[in-house]
Amino acid sequence: MAVVAKGEFGFIDDIKVLFDGLNNRKVEGIGDDCAVMRHGEHLTVVTTDMLIEGVHFLRDATSAYLLGRKSLAVNLSDVAAMGAQPTMSLLSIAIPRECQGEWVAEFMRGYHSMSEQFGVALVGGDTTSSLGAVAINVVAFGEIENSAVKRRSAARVGDMILVTGTLGESGAGLRDILQGKYDTELAMKHKNPTPCVDEGVWLGGRAEVRAMMDLSDGLASDVRHIMEQSGVGADIDVSRVPYVTTIEDAVNGGEDYKLLLTADSAMCNELCAQFEQQFGYPLSVVGEITDQAGTLRWFDDSAPIAPSWAGFQHF
Amino acid sequence: MAVVAKGEFGFIDDIKVLFDGLNNRKVEGIGDDCAVMRHGEHLTVVTTDMLIEGVHFLRDATSAYLLGRKSLAVNLSDVAAMGAQPTMSLLSIAIPRECQGEWVAEFMRGYHSMSEQFGVALVGGDTTSSLGAVAINVVAFGEIENSAVKRRSAARVGDMILVTGTLGESGAGLRDILQGKYDTELAMKHKNPTPCVDEGVWLGGRAEVRAMMDLSDGLASDVRHIMEQSGVGADIDVSRVPYVTTIEDAVNGGEDYKLLLTADSAMCNELCAQFEQQFGYPLSVVGEITDQAGTLRWFDDSAPIAPSWAGFQHF
Repeated sequence: MAVVAKGEFGFIDDIKVLFDGLNNRKVEGIGDDCAVMRHGEHLTVVTTDMLIEGVHFLRDATSAYLLGRKSLAVNLSDVAAMGAQPTMSLLSIAIPRECQGEWVAEFMRGYHSMSEQFGVALVGGDTTSSLGAVAINVVAFGEIENSAVKRRSAARVGDMILVTGTLGESGAGLRDILQGKYDTELAMKHKNPTPCVDEGVWLGGRAEVRAMMDLSDGLASDVRHIMEQSGVGADIDVSRVPYVTTIEDAVNGGEDYKLLLTADSAMCNELCAQFEQQFGYPLSVVGEITDQAGTLRWFDDSAPIAPSWAGFQHF
Repeated sequence: MAVVAKGEFGFIDDIKVLFDGLNNRKVEGIGDDCAVMRHGEHLTVVTTDMLIEGVHFLRDATSAYLLGRKSLAVNLSDVAAMGAQPTMSLLSIAIPRECQGEWVAEFMRGYHSMSEQFGVALVGGDTTSSLGAVAINVVAFGEIENSAVKRRSAARVGDMILVTGTLGESGAGLRDILQGKYDTELAMKHKNPTPCVDEGVWLGGRAEVRAMMDLSDGLASDVRHIMEQSGVGADIDVSRVPYVTTIEDAVNGGEDYKLLLTADSAMCNELCAQFEQQFGYPLSVVGEITDQAGTLRWFDDSAPIAPSWAGFQHF
């Protein structure tokens, strides 16, 4: 079995196969937003994300402070997507010479502000020099009871598919940034995302919520992970997807860091009403889980459409 | 309180101060080889190391396979230095286009071989592209009972200072590599280190062993961490330091990944004898912990000497 790079997701599948024999029964590994470690009924979840200058951010287009915030935010989003309360992080950062003074100090102030916002401890890490790009790796941990954890594999046929908030603004902001417009309102959505930490913990406590994940690669891509892990299909109605710019941004734009979930259809109206009362913005039904395993169908106001949407592509 | 980069260790001190208020009582954070998470009497330790092309390795000087092995090895060394049994890892890797085929497949085979050698699961990670250098971040976890964990802060006045094996070959190998001699026996010591996993677990089980850490920055630098964390001084006799090349390599060379420990002086002879019987190579006394807090003194066959050794410098 050869490990070959064939785009991010295929590559991970190959790694999973190569390492399969080494995995033990106390840990659930590759395949969800976080790995899960069991201590009886209590679970620790852990996730990691790497951010590379020139790939994930342009040093000229963001401030070190916002980059520090975002580096942790994207990991807290993965923890929240399991329904878990984030508790602590590890930070590794490689810094070129010209960033070793005020730049990294500002980065750390930003990282600290996100840590403080959600009460997350920094318990370790690594600092090193870099000859070229800034490279950042963050690991975030969360805690949750076994009964509350939300896995991608838990969707059932007939579940409603829901999203928190509005989609696509971060993707539209990235387009602004790539056009040199670094400080538009949309660009700020991209540079300073707020992870849905409280929302994730609240949804984790609701038994009618089944599968959950965070939206980092766009709805059109991310919903497929739930389909694959749960062995189901999905119908999505674009007329129900909440967005600000365009439907294409909303389904293909990356880095929204909103939550995508499925829930028992009988409880959805009440769930959405209580969510909006709690958080002051909508939780919206955008579609339904079907028994057409592996098939994602799109509708517009209930009429079938056939777009070629595939979400944000990494490689 | 400003965070400013002033070399790796000062920078970490500043981060520690900035984040102090956020740290909780269930975790011991920055300051040891690993962070420690408590679950009653059972502890999970966690560590992370980042490897950057051009800083930590030259892609031309090593094989992807050996780099994969070493990326995990250096983290297993930190876990073993706590006395803990490594259990699992997370791997993040940023890969430039020219490495996205066979190179990364070889890297993963090497990472797998080290994982298999010590029974370590791969439970998650991140893969991304890079515009320039390869960047690798590994997180390793270990398990240990609270009574067995070895911290840098546990040295006592009168303890003997000991090291496993011989020192300085990796540093000498790095010198070969920087001179373009990539395949010497010493270069291989640098490129393919074996972490002292079994030794660390065995020493963790010995009550007479007090402080322990791994040697990654050279004895002259690393012993100061034990001195600082334990509030003690140290006398080291270079005539007792086991080495192959030169004493300068042995005390200043980085990346030995041997273990540095202190132990009750009354038990040292027996400890060293049993270690050699168990592992087939020596555990050697090289010095003694003193009450001269913060003072590191060097001797040569009991005569004081005053070298300007400071270990391997990162920045």
